[in-house]
Amino acid sequence: MSVIEELKPYVIGLDLGGTNSVFGIVDSRGEIKATTAIKTQAYTNVEDYVKASLDALHVIIEQVGGMENIKAMGIGAPNGNYYKGTIEFAPNLAWGHDGVVPLADMFSKGLGGIPVALTNDANAAAIGEMIYGVARGMKNFIVITLGTGVGSGIVINGQVVYGSDGFAGELGHVIAQKEGGRSCGCGRFGCLETYCSATGVARSAREFLEKTTTPSVLRELKPEEITSLDVSLAAAKGDKLAIDVYEFTGKMLGEACADFAAFSSPEAFIFFGGLTKAGDLLMKPLKKAYDENVLKIFKDKAKFLISGLEGSSAAVLGASAVGWEL
Amino acid sequence: MSVIEELKPYVIGLDLGGTNSVFGIVDSRGEIKATTAIKTQAYTNVEDYVKASLDALHVIIEQVGGMENIKAMGIGAPNGNYYKGTIEFAPNLAWGHDGVVPLADMFSKGLGGIPVALTNDANAAAIGEMIYGVARGMKNFIVITLGTGVGSGIVINGQVVYGSDGFAGELGHVIAQKEGGRSCGCGRFGCLETYCSATGVARSAREFLEKTTTPSVLRELKPEEITSLDVSLAAAKGDKLAIDVYEFTGKMLGEACADFAAFSSPEAFIFFGGLTKAGDLLMKPLKKAYDENVLKIFKDKAKFLISGLEGSSAAVLGASAVGWEL
Repeated sequence: MSVIEELKPYVIGLDLGGTNSVFGIVDSRGEIKATTAIKTQAYTNVEDYVKASLDALHVIIEQVGGMENIKAMGIGAPNGNYYKGTIEFAPNLAWGHDGVVPLADMFSKGLGGIPVALTNDANAAAIGEMIYGVARGMKNFIVITLGTGVGSGIVINGQVVYGSDGFAGELGHVIAQKEGGRSCGCGRFGCLETYCSATGVARSAREFLEKTTTPSVLRELKPEEITSLDVSLAAAKGDKLAIDVYEFTGKMLGEACADFAAFSSPEAFIFFGGLTKAGDLLMKPLKKAYDENVLKIFKDKAKFLISGLEGSSAAVLGASAVGWEL
Repeated sequence: MSVIEELKPYVIGLDLGGTNSVFGIVDSRGEIKATTAIKTQAYTNVEDYVKASLDALHVIIEQVGGMENIKAMGIGAPNGNYYKGTIEFAPNLAWGHDGVVPLADMFSKGLGGIPVALTNDANAAAIGEMIYGVARGMKNFIVITLGTGVGSGIVINGQVVYGSDGFAGELGHVIAQKEGGRSCGCGRFGCLETYCSATGVARSAREFLEKTTTPSVLRELKPEEITSLDVSLAAAKGDKLAIDVYEFTGKMLGEACADFAAFSSPEAFIFFGGLTKAGDLLMKPLKKAYDENVLKIFKDKAKFLISGLEGSSAAVLGASAVGWEL
């Protein structure tokens, strides 16, 4: 690294989600100096997406004094491959579901050749938690992101687990239900994500409404329009069916975490994303199911924490941290 | 480390199994210079076990020139805690199933204060494979031991995964069957080990004999005396029920490995222990179930290997390698 490069004070972080792409320009102390966003969904091919991103980025890059102040870029993205800088077969991206997109290279070319690193969005969140969040000082923990899907960032011995191919940590796609499992966007059945994501919660609500006669305020809504927010609002008001849905969601997640403990025995599970707003509605049955299902030697060891970082800033900070490592 | 210590050319390795305890004195090139064994099962308290071990050890220590040639000792043991040097709640050990045994300290005291390290037997096997076996040069792999139980040693970024408490890597105790799962020695139900261990195979055979009318040479045996060896011999001769049992065993294991891939995306799964003698009978349905169940991004990536090391020598070498690190 030359002296001139060392003097560049900022890194670009990109939290690339299925719905929105949030950009931040971050300094070495983790302060976000400027931010902007575009709709990921609005683009059907990656060239248009990158062009729109660069247009938005150039505005905030000017705000921090231009490209000469930018050292690198870090991207957190679904199905991001850290080793190759690619997004591969990402089911939730219109321009990325059916092949290998060399996104790091594309941004690097568009930004005058600065180094660009890319990782799984949940891995970026894990790095964000480790540097700025509740995982400070921890060497072994698992971040589970509960959003539209379920993602995970696994840290072992202080390092994010990328595995042999850069794709490790897809805990949303362990099979949580073998018999009669729900169909998943990945083409298989019974994935944890089909039960414990925001869409999974809505799906459970529809299922419970159909299979039971339990009275519920949710019966006033069109089934196909029910969201996890509707369910958590109903549950907060004491709606039994809605509470049952969160009990079930927490149970499925707690049982899965008991299996994850057998793998890496983390010091903490850290939950991140929209669904965590349900708070104890989710966390109580989750911890109960974990305690009831975890192997004796792991009992009462792991902490269950909710991320204290704001959703997209943690992901932007995490993504930027990947950039600092370049 | 003093110069005198550096000159001590040997390390003691102990492969501590539920049935046998095998000791080896190993040099820095991985050559076993002397070996001995005692029956683990013959002792009901740990003091007697350690005394018998030391009596046996002193004979082979003399063969290599006495204690002044011994640098350290490494132990691979069920439920071994690397951080604390203890065995904790090991269901298969008469003297270790109900508490915390400070075995490393006890051996250290009995051997004039040399450093003694202890780890999970499967972790020791993983280290053995990494240094002397099929995992040479690999940084990300999972060793699965298929013996009386199912154990695992997980290596990520070239390091054995011990987790926050020293107990990580208990993949024999992920829940392979949620509904109506078999009772496990750990007190829970449906653990992988109840299906994919040698005892699990025998159990499947008894179950299949009871639930079907399929003709089988195994019907000539007393159900309670059937072993996995009987099943594999019958299968090798074309016995349909026995073949079905291995198909089922391989399927359960392959499905579990598909979940493990989502965790750490290993370069290889390495199978170790008695059950691997069944060869393709087990490996074919295993690979088939893996291919059918693994997430698309992991397809056709992981190798499926059988350990090339002799069972107990790999474990002894692995245990000794833990000692070399001291």
